[in-house]
Amino acid sequence: MAPFRHRLRVRYHECDPQGIVFNANFLTFADIAITELYREAFGGWQAPMDEHGIDMVVAEANVRYLAPLRFDEEFELVASLVRIGRTSTTTLIVVERDDERVAEVEIRHVVVDSESRRKAPIPSPVREGLRRFEA
Amino acid sequence: MAPFRHRLRVRYHECDPQGIVFNANFLTFADIAITELYREAFGGWQAPMDEHGIDMVVAEANVRYLAPLRFDEEFELVASLVRIGRTSTTTLIVVERDDERVAEVEIRHVVVDSESRRKAPIPSPVREGLRRFEA
Amino acid sequence: MAPFRHRLRVRYHECDPQGIVFNANFLTFADIAITELYREAFGGWQAPMDEHGIDMVVAEANVRYLAPLRFDEEFELVASLVRIGRTSTTTLIVVERDDERVAEVEIRHVVVDSESRRKAPIPSPVREGLRRFEA
Amino acid sequence: MAPFRHRLRVRYHECDPQGIVFNANFLTFADIAITELYREAFGGWQAPMDEHGIDMVVAEANVRYLAPLRFDEEFELVASLVRIGRTSTTTLIVVERDDERVAEVEIRHVVVDSESRRKAPIPSPVREGLRRFEA
Repeated sequence: MAPFRHRLRVRYHECDPQGIVFNANFLTFADIAITELYREAFGGWQAPMDEHGIDMVVAEANVRYLAPLRFDEEFELVASLVRIGRTSTTTLIVVERDDERVAEVEIRHVVVDSESRRKAPIPSPVREGLRRFEA
Repeated sequence: MAPFRHRLRVRYHECDPQGIVFNANFLTFADIAITELYREAFGGWQAPMDEHGIDMVVAEANVRYLAPLRFDEEFELVASLVRIGRTSTTTLIVVERDDERVAEVEIRHVVVDSESRRKAPIPSPVREGLRRFEA
Repeated sequence: MAPFRHRLRVRYHECDPQGIVFNANFLTFADIAITELYREAFGGWQAPMDEHGIDMVVAEANVRYLAPLRFDEEFELVASLVRIGRTSTTTLIVVERDDERVAEVEIRHVVVDSESRRKAPIPSPVREGLRRFEA
Repeated sequence: MAPFRHRLRVRYHECDPQGIVFNANFLTFADIAITELYREAFGGWQAPMDEHGIDMVVAEANVRYLAPLRFDEEFELVASLVRIGRTSTTTLIVVERDDERVAEVEIRHVVVDSESRRKAPIPSPVREGLRRFEA
């Protein structure tokens, strides 16, 4: 199965005085990739959230910085699910510039009940949709 | 009456590749100044919001950039109310580095009913508190 | 002449606890619009900067907020030059969601010599390019 | 030896529509903690950078999110060096609200030559200063 791909260009304010993307912004890029992957996989997170009374929270994020990314450069977010558990998922987002790997972000999300904030199972349609992008 | 003063230091991620604070962040600084002024003036915005079922929205913001502000520099936000109307306020936030004026931000806020989103009068305790910092 | 148009979607981190785009981010949107307008008008700012030893600084920014913009909504940045002076420009960026005007941003830029930081004339090719998007 | 402590308050724009600090901003908090730790440890990064022609880049960052942090809450960044190598350091930043652990960030920095961008040894005064905050 092919990973999900989303193309972006570095914005000026995302860069720091070193002239490169500030390190925290790779987590923002990962967040954008995941939003777009969800849209493609099961029509976006809003419907399951409303229907099942659930929410998704970030439990862990790991970033490896491999090369600097500069203002105005185009890059691709290549996302895939490396683990789909009962109540949590782990998504790998590779940031690529042409064929160069610029960074790797791994994010673990946990599904929780909106009210109790306790772990909740991933709804079936979400699970089915995510399978399309399983690594 | 003395204006409200709040001291900050420029954070690295607030600067752009020119090595200076990115222009949009002066509106963020203004927002911080206003939050702190409200805390000092009437104990913060949360209580009147909950009690009166109101919200505050930004209607207009004007920024004049007078000098660059750099990473790690300390600066002062000097805030005063230049107009306290029935349903809206205009706040001036001067950004100062030592005795130099770095930027001026003028923001007009409108009080609205949380539900109807229509204009609502500024609650009396809020109005009284703001008077302390009227220009 | 037609204004320049650039389409974007609201990112999650651009929204605040009110669930709408944080006010400062409209200046960021304006910055993106201008970067893309420059790319279209004269191939981007990098070449004239390098060739003429000049830089561009923001002198003034005015924002009018007309309607809230929410997470995941698509919007269009509609940019045009309302004034092209000898050393400065004023750009109007209208933020539109479908046919609704969400915000208006007006930004005045000044061209400066990279070294002396004194005002410098807008290079001819830049001026010619900008004319295409003059209001 | 005691870890370095730096106290902050959550800013409005750092929060997302869930009303909590957006996940990427914990890396920003870590960056602020490290800047302040360096100031305390050896007078800040600018002098060694200029004197030795070196730079510091982030190679890896890992975040564990333990509890949500909300607008206006005060928190403490508790930073210590968990490893001081020949050319790199690993810093642990614990984000605490009162006595509750809100998040843990571990960041690995590498010192590089400003020109060649190759790994360079940590200058002695920097190393000595950092020892004060070694875990």
